[in-house]
Amino acid sequence: MFPFKKNIILDRDSNRNLYLQICDQIIGFIKSGKLPPSTRLPGTRKLAEDLNIHRKTVIAAYDELIAQGWIKTVPAKGTFVSNTLPIIKTQNFSKTINEVYKNDKSNFSFHKRPYLYRKPNTVYKKEILRIDDGVPDNRLAPIDEIAKTYRNITQKTYHKSLLGYRSIYGNDELRNALVSYLNQTRGLHIDKDNILITRGSQMGIYLASQLLLHKKKNIIIGTTNYMTADNTFQEAGGILHQVPVDKNGLDTVAIENVCKNKTIDVVYTTSHHHHPTTVTLSAERRMHLLELAKQYRFAIIEDDYDYDFHYSHAPILPLASNDYSGNVIYIGGFTKIIAPAMRIGYLIAPKDFVDEAARLRRIIDRQGDTLLEQTLAKMIINGDVQRHCNKVLKIYKERRDLFCSLFKEKLGDYFDFDIPNGGMAIWVRLHQKYHWDDVVKIAEQHNLVLNHEWKRYDNDNSRHNGIRIGFASLNKEEAREFVDRMAKVFDSLNEETL
Amino acid sequence: MFPFKKNIILDRDSNRNLYLQICDQIIGFIKSGKLPPSTRLPGTRKLAEDLNIHRKTVIAAYDELIAQGWIKTVPAKGTFVSNTLPIIKTQNFSKTINEVYKNDKSNFSFHKRPYLYRKPNTVYKKEILRIDDGVPDNRLAPIDEIAKTYRNITQKTYHKSLLGYRSIYGNDELRNALVSYLNQTRGLHIDKDNILITRGSQMGIYLASQLLLHKKKNIIIGTTNYMTADNTFQEAGGILHQVPVDKNGLDTVAIENVCKNKTIDVVYTTSHHHHPTTVTLSAERRMHLLELAKQYRFAIIEDDYDYDFHYSHAPILPLASNDYSGNVIYIGGFTKIIAPAMRIGYLIAPKDFVDEAARLRRIIDRQGDTLLEQTLAKMIINGDVQRHCNKVLKIYKERRDLFCSLFKEKLGDYFDFDIPNGGMAIWVRLHQKYHWDDVVKIAEQHNLVLNHEWKRYDNDNSRHNGIRIGFASLNKEEAREFVDRMAKVFDSLNEETL
Repeated sequence: MFPFKKNIILDRDSNRNLYLQICDQIIGFIKSGKLPPSTRLPGTRKLAEDLNIHRKTVIAAYDELIAQGWIKTVPAKGTFVSNTLPIIKTQNFSKTINEVYKNDKSNFSFHKRPYLYRKPNTVYKKEILRIDDGVPDNRLAPIDEIAKTYRNITQKTYHKSLLGYRSIYGNDELRNALVSYLNQTRGLHIDKDNILITRGSQMGIYLASQLLLHKKKNIIIGTTNYMTADNTFQEAGGILHQVPVDKNGLDTVAIENVCKNKTIDVVYTTSHHHHPTTVTLSAERRMHLLELAKQYRFAIIEDDYDYDFHYSHAPILPLASNDYSGNVIYIGGFTKIIAPAMRIGYLIAPKDFVDEAARLRRIIDRQGDTLLEQTLAKMIINGDVQRHCNKVLKIYKERRDLFCSLFKEKLGDYFDFDIPNGGMAIWVRLHQKYHWDDVVKIAEQHNLVLNHEWKRYDNDNSRHNGIRIGFASLNKEEAREFVDRMAKVFDSLNEETL
Repeated sequence: MFPFKKNIILDRDSNRNLYLQICDQIIGFIKSGKLPPSTRLPGTRKLAEDLNIHRKTVIAAYDELIAQGWIKTVPAKGTFVSNTLPIIKTQNFSKTINEVYKNDKSNFSFHKRPYLYRKPNTVYKKEILRIDDGVPDNRLAPIDEIAKTYRNITQKTYHKSLLGYRSIYGNDELRNALVSYLNQTRGLHIDKDNILITRGSQMGIYLASQLLLHKKKNIIIGTTNYMTADNTFQEAGGILHQVPVDKNGLDTVAIENVCKNKTIDVVYTTSHHHHPTTVTLSAERRMHLLELAKQYRFAIIEDDYDYDFHYSHAPILPLASNDYSGNVIYIGGFTKIIAPAMRIGYLIAPKDFVDEAARLRRIIDRQGDTLLEQTLAKMIINGDVQRHCNKVLKIYKERRDLFCSLFKEKLGDYFDFDIPNGGMAIWVRLHQKYHWDDVVKIAEQHNLVLNHEWKRYDNDNSRHNGIRIGFASLNKEEAREFVDRMAKVFDSLNEETL
């Protein structure tokens, strides 16, 4: 008989229950063929004695193995390894998988999209300081509150139904919570039918683009624009038209001129704040844009990813709050407030559009994570979200102020920048005698990784020499360290040119 | 002075901390205008006395309000409501949002997709028994294990980095876990580069379709096919060609004949088990299909949603396990094992295809929920997933057996069916003297809701009279109740025709 006593090794200090340890090991013996089908197992009393444990533990282990189908009890005869095991046997098919062949290249053709290609992110060592283009500080994420709320929800039996297939529009409680939340914080006047829950705001942009830009429809974007959005419009088949962006955002007079000559279907705006230059679309231009939309019947995709992060004064209400004609598709999300990995966003639009977007969403991803959506709903209702938002707003404002004063003090000779009214990044325009490619290269020698994709921001090839430098994810020490290293980078550059 | 003592009401039995209760109420007073900007707040000692609580609690509340920016302390003067509040003021824009106008219809045009339209699900009363077309029983979901693992992960500080923007390919630990898991359970021979983590298998089908079927490429599907997949192919621009499906699955000889006359780019198969008819693609046909793919250079989308649910004998290994030419895109997911709302799936393919799919995924949804992906990785590694899988497999097998014996005993005169080898549904073909429309109508009178969309399964309009009846989500009592009511439904139908 197989020597169970010798082969089963129990670790009483392990987190894993003893009975599961027994299960794991017996399954291992079965899988490896040490215990072939129909092998008789020792009685529970015997095994308990051999292993010096309580008999109940062995019974629990056997019950588990029976439930999983590994062993079977034959009344009056004993317990045996099952002869119809839940393991894999090849059946007259692929008898000889001996050679391991990993396919790198496919043998079929598919549609390649060069515009979607980007350099993969490198993983850097710890001592290296990496500068992003404006993302939240994950160390501030309210992860304990989330985990707690999440757990409370999963503990309620009646929430089991949340695990199943649910509405393609998103969790009902979250949609209801968003009605009040958005009406209160953004001056919208929507009801539940105007809301589709998405995965982050990117899915909102994708859905809107697919519905609006099919078959070479025309879309207006800014000269300098959020590159991922541009890619999304191209993927949907849209034709991009650029208009200038100045200190007040998109030039709406230029938009009007384009509309006079061409049927424009969509205008894309990051009203609060323009990506990448961080300017705010002025109230006057917002009114003008809404009038144009009504007159020329185009849709406005208002990507308000930065609305919650405005420092200087209260934010300007979104275009969507003043849209009485059904022209605005308002897109936002909680990834910047909560955490990028917890992808919950929303698309707000006239009901007919929301319905169509939901149908498309069904075939992309069926539905969202209803448990996480319910968690967020609870956190909006009990005020956790707003509270957290106010807290990080204060911290980010301090970081912006520190960054800008350090920049002015130590780096003012090398680039220009304006203090941004909000957001998580500063738009930095390098003086023409320098080039970002050189700065990036020297920076690496100082263990500093800068955003090397400055071309992302230069969609009209004007060589404006601007990049975004994110300040929100760096604490005070890191900010000081960054600026010190940058000063050294420019010192080296100046020496080289001497 | 504002009567704090009278207005602040504390509930000592509440789950909410006392200091947060104070915060909530003071914020409420500020928002409603009862405490205008610059109002002086009582000292902490005074308020503590008034409310009969410890002074530390008031200090905590004030600290929180200061952190959130609602109030400010002026040294030597006291604490005041802030005069730059984080609340919304309309700024020279939309001064008169008095009328509430909710847009039902958009003022712009967008591309409508009639093929995506389905009747919305009705919400039914509790006493009504609703029959699905084969979905898991959420009551069996391992939600406690998930919540526990999830919480353990969130408690580790070093996991904070999981909250940020991460790889578009999915969580590294999950990809590594899947390499062993899939190689072991499915006989695949892949490495990490062949894996893209998706949201459920539907996203895999969507991504593959968008890459493969662009610009009217040709795809072969079965006569009777999974409707959502058909919709996804159409959305991507594919042209659908049907071949017959018999007891051994897709007719591969018919596929060969199509290939001789037309350039076929893709063949779609639900090898294990064909949707909707539940048959298994035989080993011989699998070999034949792989040979054809190699010869005619088409891609096979192998949607193996049902692989883990096979009852009669060990499952036949996927086509992907025997693909040495790089023709198979293998799609699966954990939604049926874990829970439909926890949408994690995978797309397995040659590396070049995986790279392209990841790039497309970036603009759809950026990335997955890394915390949930990490949770699943842990559950695969510690065996929770396989254990749970074995457990529910046993339960579903019992339910299938009960269902089939009850069907045979009580409903055999009204329809034909074969005992499915796996999956969660029975393919039921109504005798021609009946019609599903009538059955559904009478059933509703018996508080029984059947899947009314029989047309979904009839993509060649053959009126085969088949629908899927899900057994997995009903326990024994519910199954008995269902069959009893069905018997009554047919009694009524027979009486009517008499």
